[in-house]
Amino acid sequence: MPASTSKYLTGDNAAINEFIDRFDVFLFDCDGVLWSGDHLFEGVVETLDFLRSKGKKVVFVTNNSTKSRQDYQKKLASLGIPSEVEEIFASAYSSAIYISRILKLPPGKDKVFVLGESGIESELATERVPFLGGTDPALRRDMTQADFDGLADGSALDPEVGCVLAGLDFHVNYLKLSTAYQYLARGATFLATNTDSTFPTNHSFFPGAGSISIPLVNMTGQQPIALGKGKFQLDRARTCMVGDRLNTDIQFGIQGGLGGTLAVLTGVCKKEEWEAEDAQFVPAYYADKLSDLRAAKP
Amino acid sequence: MPASTSKYLTGDNAAINEFIDRFDVFLFDCDGVLWSGDHLFEGVVETLDFLRSKGKKVVFVTNNSTKSRQDYQKKLASLGIPSEVEEIFASAYSSAIYISRILKLPPGKDKVFVLGESGIESELATERVPFLGGTDPALRRDMTQADFDGLADGSALDPEVGCVLAGLDFHVNYLKLSTAYQYLARGATFLATNTDSTFPTNHSFFPGAGSISIPLVNMTGQQPIALGKGKFQLDRARTCMVGDRLNTDIQFGIQGGLGGTLAVLTGVCKKEEWEAEDAQFVPAYYADKLSDLRAAKP
Repeated sequence: MPASTSKYLTGDNAAINEFIDRFDVFLFDCDGVLWSGDHLFEGVVETLDFLRSKGKKVVFVTNNSTKSRQDYQKKLASLGIPSEVEEIFASAYSSAIYISRILKLPPGKDKVFVLGESGIESELATERVPFLGGTDPALRRDMTQADFDGLADGSALDPEVGCVLAGLDFHVNYLKLSTAYQYLARGATFLATNTDSTFPTNHSFFPGAGSISIPLVNMTGQQPIALGKGKFQLDRARTCMVGDRLNTDIQFGIQGGLGGTLAVLTGVCKKEEWEAEDAQFVPAYYADKLSDLRAAKP
Repeated sequence: MPASTSKYLTGDNAAINEFIDRFDVFLFDCDGVLWSGDHLFEGVVETLDFLRSKGKKVVFVTNNSTKSRQDYQKKLASLGIPSEVEEIFASAYSSAIYISRILKLPPGKDKVFVLGESGIESELATERVPFLGGTDPALRRDMTQADFDGLADGSALDPEVGCVLAGLDFHVNYLKLSTAYQYLARGATFLATNTDSTFPTNHSFFPGAGSISIPLVNMTGQQPIALGKGKFQLDRARTCMVGDRLNTDIQFGIQGGLGGTLAVLTGVCKKEEWEAEDAQFVPAYYADKLSDLRAAKP
């Protein structure tokens, strides 16, 4: 027997109403909950509207740091889901907020060297954080002897860099890793949008943001401060995480001290996983699909 | 007080003769022992000849997997050190030997996907091991949606790959890491030329072979079999490691169970390091410079 059991909501209107009443905020992992690949699940838009109409805050959560909130809003729209930018929580955004409002780098040491894509850049620009690296085409090339020389003696480095931010970078290369390492070796603060080792897509796995930063962890012996999902300012007790993966979404909800977790069976996890004797993360609630919540519409 | 003390050889002819008589094989770390950067230390060639004339085997050891033994022989020659290919032990070579003579991949599953440079490729070719990846220009490009599709469904993979070999790759990119991951996820054997996190050059540090493989370690939860220095077939008791770094060369000699270790003070380590109370690796012998061994010439 697992440590706790999960309440099944599908078809149980009283349980659904009680569930909805317990929370003010619903955080949604998107792929596997709202859609799969390019296929929007039936009734999702109506269910989100139903929650909004009951005064609930819906938040779309993504650890994909290659996208800004605006990018993600476009993606939601392309799948047929209307949203506000304020409803989107992306790790690129939370990283930019952390740097501008919490880290507060001192003047003269306030530039950020970015390992990542344009999503991070636009969020940093919005927060008026100066940055370099990122999608700069000057870094998308082979390492030369001049690079070895200039990085080793520091002449190729910007003395105003005080922070390295590593996210998912589809254009990672030896020059960028070498440059990031030299900034860290000279004392730059080490941040990561998130440290997911894999980036799940196409029903398979590809290197995630954590696989971009880990060579630097290995070289410096230093762990980055991982931003992303973990830094919400909200009433945790009245917040529910909705997801399809036990070892990311549901784990996040439980370890993050949220008031509740809801697993839906439209994605990767199966009921048998948390009913197993050695199940580590058991969702407080589960349903066959997200739109089952609408059945309780009064 | 450290656990043991180190015998000082410089100027002590009796001690030098006793030292030389104790060993048949001398393994040399090169940079910091024989030369620094492009500067050959005085008396090195004569000292090597002196050892050879006494019937000793000298072995030049390098973990730099970007070079084949032939490449390394050229490098030694360019610095003025004559050598035989058989005197060179490079991690690219030891990896090829391991694959062809020990791993023995089954027919139909005997191709190696390489993360690395031409040094690995030429050593694999010499051992008639079929390989792909490596310096193939077709992989030196951005990841496309077709790559995500073809890697996820396997159509872009060669079904005959049975092994991934990761070494230092100055052209590492997202496509190569994604491809290597997919082979490992499908059961390929995971090998590394070595797992040094850094590649010391220009008196600084750059990403080493271990920083190329570690994203794959992180993604798969699997450690590679690390080849390189560790796989000599020799009489360990009669072998001495000569190096300038406590935490690589001397550590290797001690943990590898070699008969002796000699530290020279022409590189990075200082006597104070192993005389410290918490010194972990204490060389059995030390000398100011390698050519001090010649003083004992009878």
